[in-house]
This record gives sequence, structure tokens and C-alpha cells, in this order.
Amino acid sequence: MPGNSLGKALTITTFGESHGPAIGVVIDGIPAGLPLSKEDIEFELSFRRPGKLFVSGRREKDEPEILSGIYNGRTTGAPVAIIIRNTDVISSLYEEVHYKPRPGHADLPYIMKYGFENWDYRGGGRASARETATRVAAGAIAKKLLMLTNTVIAGHLISLGNVELEEKVSFEDILCSKYSPVRASKKSLEEKYEKLLMEATKEGDSYGGVVEIVVNNPPIGLGEPVFDKIKADLAKAVMSIPAVVGFEYGLGFKAARMRGSEANDEIILKDGKLGWKYNNAGGILGGLTNGEQIILRCAFKPTSSIRKPQKTIDLRTMKETEISVIGRHDPAVAIRGVAVVEAMVALVLADHAIRAGIIPQVRLDDKQASLIEENWKRYVNACRPTEGSQ
Amino acid sequence: MPGNSLGKALTITTFGESHGPAIGVVIDGIPAGLPLSKEDIEFELSFRRPGKLFVSGRREKDEPEILSGIYNGRTTGAPVAIIIRNTDVISSLYEEVHYKPRPGHADLPYIMKYGFENWDYRGGGRASARETATRVAAGAIAKKLLMLTNTVIAGHLISLGNVELEEKVSFEDILCSKYSPVRASKKSLEEKYEKLLMEATKEGDSYGGVVEIVVNNPPIGLGEPVFDKIKADLAKAVMSIPAVVGFEYGLGFKAARMRGSEANDEIILKDGKLGWKYNNAGGILGGLTNGEQIILRCAFKPTSSIRKPQKTIDLRTMKETEISVIGRHDPAVAIRGVAVVEAMVALVLADHAIRAGIIPQVRLDDKQASLIEENWKRYVNACRPTEGSQ
Amino acid sequence: MPGNSLGKALTITTFGESHGPAIGVVIDGIPAGLPLSKEDIEFELSFRRPGKLFVSGRREKDEPEILSGIYNGRTTGAPVAIIIRNTDVISSLYEEVHYKPRPGHADLPYIMKYGFENWDYRGGGRASARETATRVAAGAIAKKLLMLTNTVIAGHLISLGNVELEEKVSFEDILCSKYSPVRASKKSLEEKYEKLLMEATKEGDSYGGVVEIVVNNPPIGLGEPVFDKIKADLAKAVMSIPAVVGFEYGLGFKAARMRGSEANDEIILKDGKLGWKYNNAGGILGGLTNGEQIILRCAFKPTSSIRKPQKTIDLRTMKETEISVIGRHDPAVAIRGVAVVEAMVALVLADHAIRAGIIPQVRLDDKQASLIEENWKRYVNACRPTEGSQ
Amino acid sequence: MPGNSLGKALTITTFGESHGPAIGVVIDGIPAGLPLSKEDIEFELSFRRPGKLFVSGRREKDEPEILSGIYNGRTTGAPVAIIIRNTDVISSLYEEVHYKPRPGHADLPYIMKYGFENWDYRGGGRASARETATRVAAGAIAKKLLMLTNTVIAGHLISLGNVELEEKVSFEDILCSKYSPVRASKKSLEEKYEKLLMEATKEGDSYGGVVEIVVNNPPIGLGEPVFDKIKADLAKAVMSIPAVVGFEYGLGFKAARMRGSEANDEIILKDGKLGWKYNNAGGILGGLTNGEQIILRCAFKPTSSIRKPQKTIDLRTMKETEISVIGRHDPAVAIRGVAVVEAMVALVLADHAIRAGIIPQVRLDDKQASLIEENWKRYVNACRPTEGSQ
Repeated sequence: MPGNSLGKALTITTFGESHGPAIGVVIDGIPAGLPLSKEDIEFELSFRRPGKLFVSGRREKDEPEILSGIYNGRTTGAPVAIIIRNTDVISSLYEEVHYKPRPGHADLPYIMKYGFENWDYRGGGRASARETATRVAAGAIAKKLLMLTNTVIAGHLISLGNVELEEKVSFEDILCSKYSPVRASKKSLEEKYEKLLMEATKEGDSYGGVVEIVVNNPPIGLGEPVFDKIKADLAKAVMSIPAVVGFEYGLGFKAARMRGSEANDEIILKDGKLGWKYNNAGGILGGLTNGEQIILRCAFKPTSSIRKPQKTIDLRTMKETEISVIGRHDPAVAIRGVAVVEAMVALVLADHAIRAGIIPQVRLDDKQASLIEENWKRYVNACRPTEGSQ
Repeated sequence: MPGNSLGKALTITTFGESHGPAIGVVIDGIPAGLPLSKEDIEFELSFRRPGKLFVSGRREKDEPEILSGIYNGRTTGAPVAIIIRNTDVISSLYEEVHYKPRPGHADLPYIMKYGFENWDYRGGGRASARETATRVAAGAIAKKLLMLTNTVIAGHLISLGNVELEEKVSFEDILCSKYSPVRASKKSLEEKYEKLLMEATKEGDSYGGVVEIVVNNPPIGLGEPVFDKIKADLAKAVMSIPAVVGFEYGLGFKAARMRGSEANDEIILKDGKLGWKYNNAGGILGGLTNGEQIILRCAFKPTSSIRKPQKTIDLRTMKETEISVIGRHDPAVAIRGVAVVEAMVALVLADHAIRAGIIPQVRLDDKQASLIEENWKRYVNACRPTEGSQ
Repeated sequence: MPGNSLGKALTITTFGESHGPAIGVVIDGIPAGLPLSKEDIEFELSFRRPGKLFVSGRREKDEPEILSGIYNGRTTGAPVAIIIRNTDVISSLYEEVHYKPRPGHADLPYIMKYGFENWDYRGGGRASARETATRVAAGAIAKKLLMLTNTVIAGHLISLGNVELEEKVSFEDILCSKYSPVRASKKSLEEKYEKLLMEATKEGDSYGGVVEIVVNNPPIGLGEPVFDKIKADLAKAVMSIPAVVGFEYGLGFKAARMRGSEANDEIILKDGKLGWKYNNAGGILGGLTNGEQIILRCAFKPTSSIRKPQKTIDLRTMKETEISVIGRHDPAVAIRGVAVVEAMVALVLADHAIRAGIIPQVRLDDKQASLIEENWKRYVNACRPTEGSQ
Repeated sequence: MPGNSLGKALTITTFGESHGPAIGVVIDGIPAGLPLSKEDIEFELSFRRPGKLFVSGRREKDEPEILSGIYNGRTTGAPVAIIIRNTDVISSLYEEVHYKPRPGHADLPYIMKYGFENWDYRGGGRASARETATRVAAGAIAKKLLMLTNTVIAGHLISLGNVELEEKVSFEDILCSKYSPVRASKKSLEEKYEKLLMEATKEGDSYGGVVEIVVNNPPIGLGEPVFDKIKADLAKAVMSIPAVVGFEYGLGFKAARMRGSEANDEIILKDGKLGWKYNNAGGILGGLTNGEQIILRCAFKPTSSIRKPQKTIDLRTMKETEISVIGRHDPAVAIRGVAVVEAMVALVLADHAIRAGIIPQVRLDDKQASLIEENWKRYVNACRPTEGSQ
């Protein structure tokens, strides 16, 4: 039964396999009048693009084509479909995988569910992380819609293996981590991560990591009790990303070790407005956004495809065997994962901002469109490295 | 916009406030022919009932009334509606709360979203944990449906404040924790938890805790890529519970600190069947159940309503004030939370088992009905303390 | 699989059988701040109440109980649940039906789908027209929400058997038909209908009829291409009513016999505003409301339960037999059907008005609430017969 | 808000404008293992293709490209995306339409809803009938799935203007009408239709018509009370087609003129199986399919774009003007509409067959796949004209 759509007021439906002709997404529920170009999509895609240091050797241009929903540079209210052709595909790398399901990978469960003969093993098929490019493409639109309230979403990698961020960082630091090849929000951390990754690559191994997202200037009152609480919808969206195995917001698991008198957060006045003293709740109380920064974290397990030999079963002989995965794989999916988590958070917030009437359902007027363009430009230019520096 | 329904093939819609006439739930999508009685619902409700040691002083009988969908003791395929009247209501306890929003509580966000004048503050209104009784009632039906595959769901409290379960426990231990007043799966742990709670009660404070759920004998192949992965739907359902602030499965956040060669799990043969050596994935790979036990955990923050005075703002004067919450509240919501998490897991698994065609969508035949009754009886009788011992 | 919910921004979920404890409905998505009372619901229910001339002899008080979602006389944003107890139930009247499926009735298809032993035959169970009372209860809320734009929905019976309305009638005439025992919008028609019905009753037979709905002052732009066009959602909602076998709007089936130059409607200026000359489109073009009155019609087949003996099969013997249905049934379901069609139209329009941002999703402010109350009072008092006249 | 998806167990999401880069559809919920080729899609598309006699002069090859969800000629369980590039586009034909909304067309309502500046007027944009090609493409998959129960859907044009089919026709006649250029099921009727259309073309006018669909060998028990009754879902799907203004099944509007004793249908035994004597109900009772042939009809209004000058308003001057539509338009949309109605019926039936567990949700086994191929071949070859005859 269908499972490839997400959202109620802003809906995405994705499709496509790693080694099929194309991957794509249909976004429905975008109000008319949003300025939107291919460059907007490409900007966001550039932060999950493979082919850089420490990420999969696959060199996709990831060029999006917008098939519908745009007229004269603005959305029309009709669904926007975006496809990305698969161009750099080497299916032969996967011949061994066909009969030797990879430990820690979706291979065997897919076979169990859909049948061996219906399983598109090439590049992981539908279970490939390649699918997440379409999420990032759709997320670009959600991010742009959120510019109406100047809501900005930024993510960084706060731990990799046993190395973690220990310094305090500003929102600016986090936002600028997109120009770090390892999504570190501090230069010193970047170096530590890089050392670790070089080691892992050499040994044919991989690392897990924790991604943190901070949302600046979120709209108040997002979330629909009791099941579509914002914390629930964020959890679902983030947990649907391949390799994510844990989710928390605010104090998260730490809160479970605390007393109420510690974990509760005093209600105070800030410049005459009601607010919270420490934002222990990570911007979410009663399942609703309360106006404080939204802060959430998720755990990525290590990339499951590794060169290091692992034990598995050969499905032809049903005998024990070993597999050394020789495809092109990131030593830590969490790095490129940051862009994907950002996109999922953007999609959930934009969906709920429409559900709450904060973003209009039908159309943006010219003033709103201009405000969005202005905020978007500032966002796009933030932290931009000077020419040649990257 | 609507947010009070969950599920696609088995749908629940809940309603009701803490101090309104009644709370209730409509369950749609139950196949015809399921033997179902009021006692089945009451059995599950008994494990989240208030009025026991260490839980809220509110003494609700929690008597469910089935309004529809049953004929001659079996479901008809029509929706089953269940209501529970609110009987032990003392709204006067909440007068202070009306103008002094509680730190860590939904009060202020609800006012921000719906307007002060539309906010039913009595007992927390719709944001009250009382709402979760309807989830447990619906969960009873889901649990019973899962008896078709002899799938049993059991939960326990693996940590309270800084005290945690350190011993290894069996599935039987976990299942039997339902008869522990603090949902401990070991007697020694029970004593430690009780000591902590007595201390907290005395000091007018509360504790957080971590709930773990283990699912024995889960169906294979549950989950619909890419957004309705079973891990995503479980996360949403569990995170929608009041006070839950974190979710993980399998290795969870620990995986983020590991290498792929550690976190991956060898594929092996068990009695000639394909399986995994350590179940590091907690029964879920590629977003699909793989046949191993499902293992997940969630973090409950401490009860936010505490007697200990806390700072807040008086909304009439917009001046700083203090509040000491005098309603009847549990010193640790995580305890009664175990039954609620079990229910949410049951609802998600039953929904997906129908989506995957493992539980029939339209009707159960007599043989299936008998099998369910038999397994249900065994489940109901498991661990039952001998008369007078509880 | 679930089928008892309707709507996306304003959702109803209904439950209950004819001879079960109660029927009911949960309405989710109502903005906070709507003034709502039991009397509002009762007002609408009074127009489909059985026990009057020419309708089923069953004498239900149809007293609704609101279980949730109201605080201080206004909605809170939480779901509103309404139940109506079944009190005047005589199941013994249905013993014969148990084994002799009624021609033209849902009996046999329900048995085929859900199994004989799971079929609640008493009073038609879930397939009973009694279920429609919950639609009318929910419709009252939708109608009240639509008072924000002063949108008024009125229905009448434009034909019964071969007798049809031939005169021109005003919107006022149609609105006032609710006080006609046979939903006729003209006195002369009322007499003809009554004569026909007396005849049918005497002969143990029944009649079909056509219901027309006119919506005055509809919001512009309702409908979401391409599948949730307003014409499509209206068709679904109306066709879901028991005994409805046809739907059309505007020129309807007549348009199929016309030329484009006849059926098309000139675009003109009315008081400086763009409009259409003849409203051939019945207020709907391109699947969107265009601001003209919405005009639609639906065909009710004759009541299938009739006293006149009809041939059927005895399921015990699988032999031919006859059945004379002795329950209490209307000689023309179309009469009470008018209130039900009105309700379904109201629910669809309110759902879409929220989807289009015309009715706010989260809450109504005081000014909006007052406007609604004022328009609602005028609506409730319209056509009211002076005491003793009915 | 989103409105471009339909179905629950088999979901389609469509996108694309008449003069944009492409139109397309994503179909989610197809079980794995269905043999599927581009040719299957093309076969169905060929029956709504423009460029023939009496249909729009636009000469699209309508070549579908399958982007996903297929591996080795069979579906994988992942969504199938199909796009059709727009190649024969002459936007200049629409310059006049930009400021002169066409009577009877979606132009003005789209402007009212989305704003003039966001309205893609070229070729009707999203409101163009071109969109229906994607429905037919998706319908091909639904039709193929229904081959599992050998369910065959056939449609024909039973009236055009005032000319109607008067003879009795067989299911074979109806099925073979796909090779008639005017979808007539009898040669004599074909000639009358052609005469009428030539006349209309000469005069720059158009005609409406009625399409009838007959479904042979439908599964029993399709439909989910009380809102997703099969009659309701069929009505919605069919009414969502551009230009459809009325829907009925079985006796339809005629039933409203009848007595119960006439309209009811005796339950009888046919070869020992329960059935109905006259199929007055058109295969649907109580909102469920009862195993008899499903028979439904819908009314198409005449093509609204006609050459004959009509009055409208020039939006630049807000003065009265005339428009003569010079695009390439069918003299009767009902003709190509037959293929579209068939597709919508197929999609609804396949969706419900999955919901009822009659078509498996997850995967077809080899035996089922073979049976489907065999039945599909017979269907494709039925009525095929010998070479050169068309």
C-alpha cells in the first residue's frame, strides 16, 4: 500500500530508484505566486551533492528539471514536479550484492517483503540514499515558503563516532557549516572529523554521527493535537530518512534523568513578550511550537555498505559467505544527511504553517512574494565563501 | 485543521477533555468477526488506571462503554466507538492554573494558538494525559488483532531519574512488569524506583524515565517505504504521547558513536531461516520489520505539574509570580506511560499488518477468530498474580 | 478498510447502528471560538426527524449529547463528538429480514462482504438511514461556520414519482420548504405530493424523488483541482447518502443534449463585477465555485423496504420465498433526505472554505463569532411558522 | 491545498499543464510482480489520442516514459512515475484568451482563485483536458491489475446531442466501440454521430453527450461504508473529469420517477448462486458491488471552446467584447472522454479491490502474474480490426 507521500497541506510524493532512469518528486499544495527557479532547487541540492571529499565517489550533476506548476517564474497553485536524471550509474558494481545481502542494509528485508525476483538491487534501488535528493529538492520550496516568516533552518554534525562538539556555537556558526565539507560548525571540529574519516576510509569502515537542527524564528502555534503534534510529525519525517535510528528534541533523553523542577522551564517576559528562560523544551510544548528556537537531534548509524569484509549468506547456496561492498559509499552518511534532515524539517514546518493559516493556502500577494525573495536572497548569500576559497 | 486521527488501514480518532462529559475513540478498519468484549478493553485499561500507589490521586473507574460495531460479541466491520465518562472531576483545583500557566506544560502554547477565551484549562483540557486512556482502549483492539500472528507487545520502565535497569531481563520479565506498581521488570529495581518516588512525592517534585518496548514474534515486512517506514510511523505514534521527548530503536543513539563494522549485524541462518546475529537493528532494517524482536525506547520527561513552587507570569497582571500545582499528579508519568506506549506500538503494527495483508482487511474467518481467542487468553493470563497478592 | 470519515480540513467520522446503543459523529477541524450549543444541533435535526406524517413511524427524540470540544459555549479547536442514543428500537420487527434479504436493500451485499454471522441485521444495522442523523448533526456545525460568509443552503423536493415542480420558485420558497411535511416549496405541490404518498402508503408501496439544493451567496474559488474539484467532492458526499442513485449540477444531464453555443454562458458585468448571465453552470466552472448560486440535484430511489410482497430467497433453505417488510419505513426517503443532502453540501463547502482560507483554520475572533451568531439567528428564524400553525 | 491525488490503496498523483514541459502521474500502491510495459500504457493512450477525425487537431505522439518502479519488466512495489512530454504546442493561439475569458470555461474561475498573474492561460494550463492523458496512463495499470479477476471495463457514447442509442447492445459491442472514431457501439449510430459532428464543425459549434460504462465480471463486496461506498467513490472520480456535469448508475434518475415495487429487483438464484433478476441497481446495492455488471452513465457538456463568437468581457478594459476560440478543439469532448471515464472507473475499482484484499497489497505471485498476462492479452486483442481497416 502507498507510502511515498508525506504532508497534509503541503504534500510531497517521491519516486525513483538509484539506477532507474530518474528520481523525482511532486509537491502539491504550494500557494500560487511563489517566485521559484531551478537555481533555488540547485542551491539546496548542492549541499547534499555527492562527489566531494569524504562522500560517495558517484559524480551526479544532480540537475533538477521542473516539469510543471511554474508560469513566468512563479508558482501557479498547480503541483510542481521535479525530476533528476540518473546519469552516473555503474550497476555492475552491484552484481555481488544481488545474491549476498549486505549486513545492516535494506537488501534482505526488501527481498522478504517484495520477493527476490521483484527486487531492484542495482544501487540499492528504492532503498538507496539517492532517493533523498528528491527530499532536498522539495525542501528547497518549503524553505522558501518559510521565508514569509523569516524562519531559517540550519543543521550541523554535532558528533561523529566518539568525537563531539564541545564548544558553544551561534546560529550563524551552524548556518555556515553548510560550507564545511564535513558539516562541522567549528574549524577545530572540522579537523577532528576529517582525521577520523580518513582513517575510516583507509580501513574500509564507516562512522555514525548525530545531526542537530536549529530553527530560528519559527512561527508560533504549529502542531495539531493530539496526533499531529509538531514533535510527532517532525519525528516521523526525520525517522523516515535512511540510516536515522533515533530522534529527540529539547533536552531529549537527558530529560528522562531529571527532576521536574530541573527540566521545567520558567515562563518569563522578554521585551514584554511571554517566553521561556532556558528553552529546555526545544521550542515545543504541548506538541505546539512556542516561539522559542526549535532544537532537535537525530542519530545516524554508520554507513552500512563498507569495504571491510562482513559475514552474510549467499542466497543461491544458502551457505555462509563474506561480502566486501565495493560500490561508492560515504564513510559517514550523517554528513550529507544534514541537508536531508534540514529538508524534512522544512517540509514539516511549511506543511504546518499552511495548516495553521500562517502561510496562505491559495496564493501569496505581491508584497508577500517580495518579502520572500528578499529573505531568500539574504539566506542564500549567508556565509558564502569568497571565490576560490572552497 | 484536523489532527486527532491516526492510521491508514486501522484508523483511530479520539476526542474529549479531562473535565468534559467524556473522552472517547472511534476505531475504523477493524475486520468483521473479531471476538471483542468490554472486558478486553478493561483489561488493558487496568494497567494505566490512576488511583494506585505513585500515580495521580484521581480515582476514575475508567469504565468503557462500547457504542457500536459489535454484534453477538464480534465485530461487524463497522467502526467501534468507545467512550469513558469523566466522573471524578474537581475543576476547582485548577483555578490558579487559569491565569498562571505552568512551566513545562501545554497551558501557554494552547493559549497562544487557540486564544485565552477558548482554552479549556480545567484539568489540562485536551492536553491532559487523561486523553491517553482512549489510546489504551483502542490499543486493546489492536493487540487482540495481532494475536492472529501471536505477536505480543510488552513494555517496562528501564530507567527512572538516574536509576537504571542493569540486569539482563527476559521477555517474560518484561511482560510481567505490568503487575509491578512501577513497571519494573525486576524486583530489586522496583524497590529502587519506589524509594525514589517516595522521595520525589515528599519534596513535591517528579522524575523522568525511559520506557522500553519489546515485540515478540512480529510479522515480517511491515512498513511502507519511503515515508511510512515502520520506524517512522512508530516514531510518530510514540512521540505523539504527552511528555515523550525522545525515541530510538535498536542501538539507537549509541549507533551514532559506532563504526559500521560494529553496528552492522551479520546475516546468519537460524534453524535454516535467514536472520540476524545480534538484532542490533531492533527488528527494523530498511524501514521494514525483519522478523527479529522489535525493540524501541522512548524518553518521558518528568511530570511538569509539581507542588514545588516555580516561577511563571500572571496573565492578568503580566507580572512575575509563582505557582505550586495542587492538582492530583503522578510523580512520574513514565510509569503509566508504559501502557500508553504499548498501545501506540500495537496500533501502528496492526495498521501495518492490515496494510501488508497479514491481517485480513474485511473479515476474519472462524478459524482465525478461534486462534485469536486462544492466544488472547494466554496473553491475559500471563503473569497473573494469585488472588490477594497484588 | 476504513470508510467512515469524510473531509480534509473539516473531517467527520461517524459510527453507530440502527439498533445499537447509540449513533454518533466526531467532527475535527472546527476552528476555536465558534459559538455552539445543543440547540443548534437540535434545530437541524428537527428537519429530518422521524415520527411525522409520511415518514417512518419510529419515534426517536433524537436528542444529541455533545461530549467534547466545547467550553463556555464556544468551540475550543478540539474535536466535537456528538452522540444520539437509540431509544425507540423494536428489533423483533426484523426477525424475518434476518433470513430473507430485502430486494433493493443492502442486506444481501452486506452478508456477501462481511459474512452472515457478522451482519447486524436489526434495523438495517450500519446500512440503516438512521446513520444519516449524525450527518445532519455534523452538518449543523458546517452550516454555522458558513454563516461567516452568510452562505445559506436550502433544499426542496422538486419531484416525487411523476409529479414535478413546474412553477418558478424563489430562494425564500426553497428555504421555507423545511416547514412543509413533504419538503414542497409550493403549497399546490405539497397537496399533490401528499395525495401520492397517501396512495403509496395504502398500497404498501413507495416513491422515488428528486432533491434540489440551492446555495445562496457561496464563497468564490472553492475546489482544489484536479481531483478535489468542488463538483467531485459534492458528488461523492451526496452519492454517499443511502438511496441516492444520481447527481448533477447546473444544466446537468440536459447539457448533454445541447450545443456549446447554447450551454455556454455569457460572461457579463453585474454592478461592475464579473459574473455569468444564466448560471447554466450552477455556480461551478472548472471545478471551482464562481460566485453564482450553486445549484445541484440528486435522485433518490423509492424506499426499498415496502409492505407489498416481493420475491426473494430464504437463506436457510435457498428456496424462493416472499417478503413483506413490516418495519416502520417512510413511503419516500427523499423527503427526509432533503435535510441530509443539505448537511452533506454544507460539510463539503465548509471543508473547502477552510481549505481555501476563507474560514480560518485555527480560530475565529470575536468579531467573526458575532457575525456568525447574527447570521445564524436570522437563518434560524427564517420562515418560522407562527405558534400552533404547524 | 493539495487536490491532485486520488485513491487510498492505489493512489495517483498527477501534474502538468497543457503547454508546460510535460504532464505526468505517479501511481503508488501497485503490488510488486505486475508485468508492465510501455506498450501497455500506449495501448490505452491510443484510445484518447487527439489527431483523429472529429477530435482536436493537436497532434501529440503522447509517448509515455516510465521513470520508476519497474525492474525486469515487472513492478517492484515502488511507485511508478510516467511522464508524457508536450511536443505539439502552439501557445500563440491562446493570446486572445489571455484577456478574454471563454464562456463555459475554467478561465475566469482560475483567475478569481489564483490571481491573474499566476494563471497559466496557455492551452488552458492545468484546466486543459490534456491533463486527462495522465489519468488514462494510470488507468492502464488499474485495468491490468483488474485482469486478476478478469474484470473488464468498457464504455461507449450512448447519446450525442439529441441522437441516442436505441438498440440493445452486447458487452462485446460496447468493448469494440473503442475502434469506432466516435465511440459508437453500433454502425448505424456511428453514421448519425458523424453527420452531427460534421455539421457542428462547419458551424463552429460543439455537442454534449452521455457516456455509459459497463463493467463485466466485477469483484463482489467492493465499497467501504458509509462514505467510501463504491457509488460515492465512482461519482467523485468520474465527476472530477473536465466537462462532466452529471453522474448516475443503475436506473439512475429514472428511479426517482418509480415506485419501490418497480425499482426493487427480485433476488433470485442463477446457477445456484444468489443474484438479481434485472440488475436495476447497476451492480451496486448498499454502496457495495453485488456481483452483477456495474452500469453507470455520465453527462458531458458540449466543448466550451467554440469558433462561433460568444460574448465575454475584456479584462483589460472591463468592457463587453466577443471571442471566437481558434485553438484546436474537439467538437464533442465526450468522444475522447469515454477512454477517460473508463480509466477513472478502473482506478476506483482497483483501489477498492486492494482495499478489500481481492488484489494483494504487497505482491502478486507468478501464477497471478501469468493469469493477468493471459487475460490482458485477450483484452488487448479483442475486436482488433484487421490491418489497414482502421
